[in-house]
Amino acid sequence: MEIGLVGLGKMGGNMRERIRQAGHTVVGYDRDPKLADVGSLKELVQTLAAPRVIWIMVPAGEATDATVNELADLLHTGDMVIDGGNSRWTEDIKHAELLKAQGVAFVDAGVSGGVWGLQNGYALMVGGDEADIARVQPVFDALKPAGDSGFVHAGGVGAGHFSKMVHNGIEYGIMQSYAEGWELLEAAPNVTNVREVFRSWQEGTVIRSWLLDLLVRALDDDEHLAGIRGYADDSGEGRWTVEAGIDMAVPTPAITASLYARFTSRQEDSPQMKAIAALRNQFGGHAVKKES
Amino acid sequence: MEIGLVGLGKMGGNMRERIRQAGHTVVGYDRDPKLADVGSLKELVQTLAAPRVIWIMVPAGEATDATVNELADLLHTGDMVIDGGNSRWTEDIKHAELLKAQGVAFVDAGVSGGVWGLQNGYALMVGGDEADIARVQPVFDALKPAGDSGFVHAGGVGAGHFSKMVHNGIEYGIMQSYAEGWELLEAAPNVTNVREVFRSWQEGTVIRSWLLDLLVRALDDDEHLAGIRGYADDSGEGRWTVEAGIDMAVPTPAITASLYARFTSRQEDSPQMKAIAALRNQFGGHAVKKES
Amino acid sequence: MEIGLVGLGKMGGNMRERIRQAGHTVVGYDRDPKLADVGSLKELVQTLAAPRVIWIMVPAGEATDATVNELADLLHTGDMVIDGGNSRWTEDIKHAELLKAQGVAFVDAGVSGGVWGLQNGYALMVGGDEADIARVQPVFDALKPAGDSGFVHAGGVGAGHFSKMVHNGIEYGIMQSYAEGWELLEAAPNVTNVREVFRSWQEGTVIRSWLLDLLVRALDDDEHLAGIRGYADDSGEGRWTVEAGIDMAVPTPAITASLYARFTSRQEDSPQMKAIAALRNQFGGHAVKKES
Amino acid sequence: MEIGLVGLGKMGGNMRERIRQAGHTVVGYDRDPKLADVGSLKELVQTLAAPRVIWIMVPAGEATDATVNELADLLHTGDMVIDGGNSRWTEDIKHAELLKAQGVAFVDAGVSGGVWGLQNGYALMVGGDEADIARVQPVFDALKPAGDSGFVHAGGVGAGHFSKMVHNGIEYGIMQSYAEGWELLEAAPNVTNVREVFRSWQEGTVIRSWLLDLLVRALDDDEHLAGIRGYADDSGEGRWTVEAGIDMAVPTPAITASLYARFTSRQEDSPQMKAIAALRNQFGGHAVKKES
Repeated sequence: MEIGLVGLGKMGGNMRERIRQAGHTVVGYDRDPKLADVGSLKELVQTLAAPRVIWIMVPAGEATDATVNELADLLHTGDMVIDGGNSRWTEDIKHAELLKAQGVAFVDAGVSGGVWGLQNGYALMVGGDEADIARVQPVFDALKPAGDSGFVHAGGVGAGHFSKMVHNGIEYGIMQSYAEGWELLEAAPNVTNVREVFRSWQEGTVIRSWLLDLLVRALDDDEHLAGIRGYADDSGEGRWTVEAGIDMAVPTPAITASLYARFTSRQEDSPQMKAIAALRNQFGGHAVKKES
Repeated sequence: MEIGLVGLGKMGGNMRERIRQAGHTVVGYDRDPKLADVGSLKELVQTLAAPRVIWIMVPAGEATDATVNELADLLHTGDMVIDGGNSRWTEDIKHAELLKAQGVAFVDAGVSGGVWGLQNGYALMVGGDEADIARVQPVFDALKPAGDSGFVHAGGVGAGHFSKMVHNGIEYGIMQSYAEGWELLEAAPNVTNVREVFRSWQEGTVIRSWLLDLLVRALDDDEHLAGIRGYADDSGEGRWTVEAGIDMAVPTPAITASLYARFTSRQEDSPQMKAIAALRNQFGGHAVKKES
Repeated sequence: MEIGLVGLGKMGGNMRERIRQAGHTVVGYDRDPKLADVGSLKELVQTLAAPRVIWIMVPAGEATDATVNELADLLHTGDMVIDGGNSRWTEDIKHAELLKAQGVAFVDAGVSGGVWGLQNGYALMVGGDEADIARVQPVFDALKPAGDSGFVHAGGVGAGHFSKMVHNGIEYGIMQSYAEGWELLEAAPNVTNVREVFRSWQEGTVIRSWLLDLLVRALDDDEHLAGIRGYADDSGEGRWTVEAGIDMAVPTPAITASLYARFTSRQEDSPQMKAIAALRNQFGGHAVKKES
Repeated sequence: MEIGLVGLGKMGGNMRERIRQAGHTVVGYDRDPKLADVGSLKELVQTLAAPRVIWIMVPAGEATDATVNELADLLHTGDMVIDGGNSRWTEDIKHAELLKAQGVAFVDAGVSGGVWGLQNGYALMVGGDEADIARVQPVFDALKPAGDSGFVHAGGVGAGHFSKMVHNGIEYGIMQSYAEGWELLEAAPNVTNVREVFRSWQEGTVIRSWLLDLLVRALDDDEHLAGIRGYADDSGEGRWTVEAGIDMAVPTPAITASLYARFTSRQEDSPQMKAIAALRNQFGGHAVKKES
């Protein structure tokens, strides 16, 4: 089949390649003319035969919002938009309504796979109407991994991004769990082969996983991670997962702890711990450390 | 080689079988005469040719302590004891010293694998002297999984159980992360195929793992886990992991959150939440729920 | 001075009384005609002499929103609206803009004091322009406690409710801290006089506070809180505090833990712990508790 | 009455003064001869008339242990030892048994008050037999604050230190709650008078407390705590409180979060966050910060 693809960065570029390898036609647009097949969204729409399917793969938030808005003006009844970026699921509801008013269908697709996706395939979690999804199934099949899993129609509009968001929240918690364990082993007085302990866990244990494999790979590069600072960004989905829990009164203590550990890792000096130090000094005469 | 095995329960019985399948001789002792090859520890020691290797596989705490004490009296210079149970690593230090006074070597072995170990092999994390471990390597090789990993000499005495303890602490955190994600998806208004979302994650995602596979298996048995109560025991290693963190001033927020979630799951009514309810009533006139 | 007061419930009714005791004129409106001095918002506006000051004391969310919208139509240049309810601070920004378009000033006031406010005074945290606040200072002075503190101009529009929100978040954390301590003491094998321990803390300790006094009062009513269920609602500000932290990348682990403890207290059976139980059963053969 | 006092540091020295001001006789011993009234523990015992009461006020752990051991040899049937230091309650059980074998009574006393105790009195939580405590009541009365509370007989041996330990655990949680709130307010875009917000809370609010008063005092010294590093030690009781919870399966999420925040505050670079950064780099190609 034929598909338009908006956004040809690290993710989008690889996805174009994987879809083409499966024999489909991809017309790509990107603001960077060196990456693009066409010069504008308008030209993209004109190039594709109706009814069109356009997959958006641009940064969540303003960029996605602007692209959906522009496409709402350019597309016609029977066309379809898929948002494969990292949009918040609440945005999907808005975008679906906007497009529906133009007779344009909307499907949201959460995509996992990172830098390994081109080779291994991308796990896809999609939300929307059954018939809409069926129409794009060949592209989903091209993108997904080879096995039986790696693709799910999770529910109505927004369910794809909601599932991907929760996937990332879980990812935060799993990573934090390994990280805490690694720090414990590194601190233990009698454990001398921490890297080898992690390697040994790759088979036969309860905690074997792909993330464990990646951690072993990282330790093979730098056994004690001496060259890496303990500084971690977060990219939206972790925060949204915690907020979704708060909205639905679902406690997420492990995922939240993982998010907060990242917040703290980015602070040069913790304001709240200044307050603790000040209080200890006030009631107990405990010495404080002066800022230098 | 020849080895004595004390404790032939769920774990020990399967391990005897796996060691025998590898062509070694196992003389097993258990308090239950129907399981045992010999009638007493004393008979076990008499049956084995010196220098002896005896693997203890009994419950951590009093039972292991009693067995080590009794073996310290029965064994002789050049013999060796391996504790493959779930002992706390601090116990290993004590046991090694006690046995050393009799000229008996000590190795601690953390064993992972659960009910799947007989078939897939047991992951082994061992602590002790290089030479002692080399002596039992054929048995370790018989027990471990087929691949390159699944066995590690983690460090000195106690390092095996310390590593296994941390393994279990990580396990708590990973399980809690999936569990939080599952509850979020079940609570989401627009996600209708939660089980299939989990199944889809088994390929191509960042969070694919053996525990994920097991959760899919459980959901295949009971899609919404309607027949299972939200009640979880804990078995020592989780607590010890948190306490090891406290001893070494290593924060373990995700693992600790996982442990506390289990504590809470076992309370019919939370005393601390009674106090919260009472306080809210005092200052805000908020209604309390009466005990029925 | 003269002020209109919208909402004469538990809080608003007592506030009317306290303002009148200070010699000011209060014209009150409430949907319940038995409580109201006038029959409608329109009549309230007609009754007050321009320039008018109207204090809104209705539930946050839709009710406050509707009242502000209606007042925006009824009021004129030079009038002023104060929102003394529990609105989220982000609502204040919206309301201030809406009213500003009509030439109407806006001040937000976070109010603390609960059922004790009529007698002890209400602590007030207000946000808005200096001149606007100065104009209503006589009413603020009537409401606030007798001493030097209990009133603050916290910053621009929204700062009053933001401060009140954080006040409540801190309240969650303090209450949770006492509650955890109480449960520990009740569980301790050798502590026989838990209530008296709490009473003793009221003087000379680092943790003496008004909330501690209230807890002692509650324990005097019911020493072991046997008649109260461990069930706690939450009322918005705790969630908003955590979300504000997430928005600004400020970790709030103790306040968040307090919020989650309330979520959990309201679950008959925890879905996430069902998943934990199912997983333990899968890998370790651990028995699960069946739902009865 | 007459009492011996061992340990005349910051706490012990002030306590000697407060007891003397109440008209009692205190014979003090300290390793530092400039502080001491007698030259040795032996001389202290010889100076006091039988039956003797000796109050120990030395650092918990080895120093207290050594002092109790030495006194067990020096004292006689009918004498009494009070441990007023910060001993772990499990030590009390040991010490009571050791002394009982010599016919010497033991009482444990948790003491709160810090640098303010001399002036305001010390809150006392004591454990032991009714008759033993009655015998020293005059000294407890001299030390405690003036009002009706500030003293409790909490239960059997150990109950005093257990209660004091929980007091300190609660203190951790309350301090953390204020500290989180302070950081939120400092980070808020529209709150310009954070210090004044805290000052205003001192009257009429739900969260007024002595710790709040101290925080206002600290902010009066240094409005944004610019001169203080966000670095906080912990002194045993916080850890023990969390461990007591773990032993008794009582979740203490807020207190634990407070303890972990202190651990983190003391790390220059977080090992666990190195692992998180390494993992993000492995699967997502996210840049890491290099160690400089």
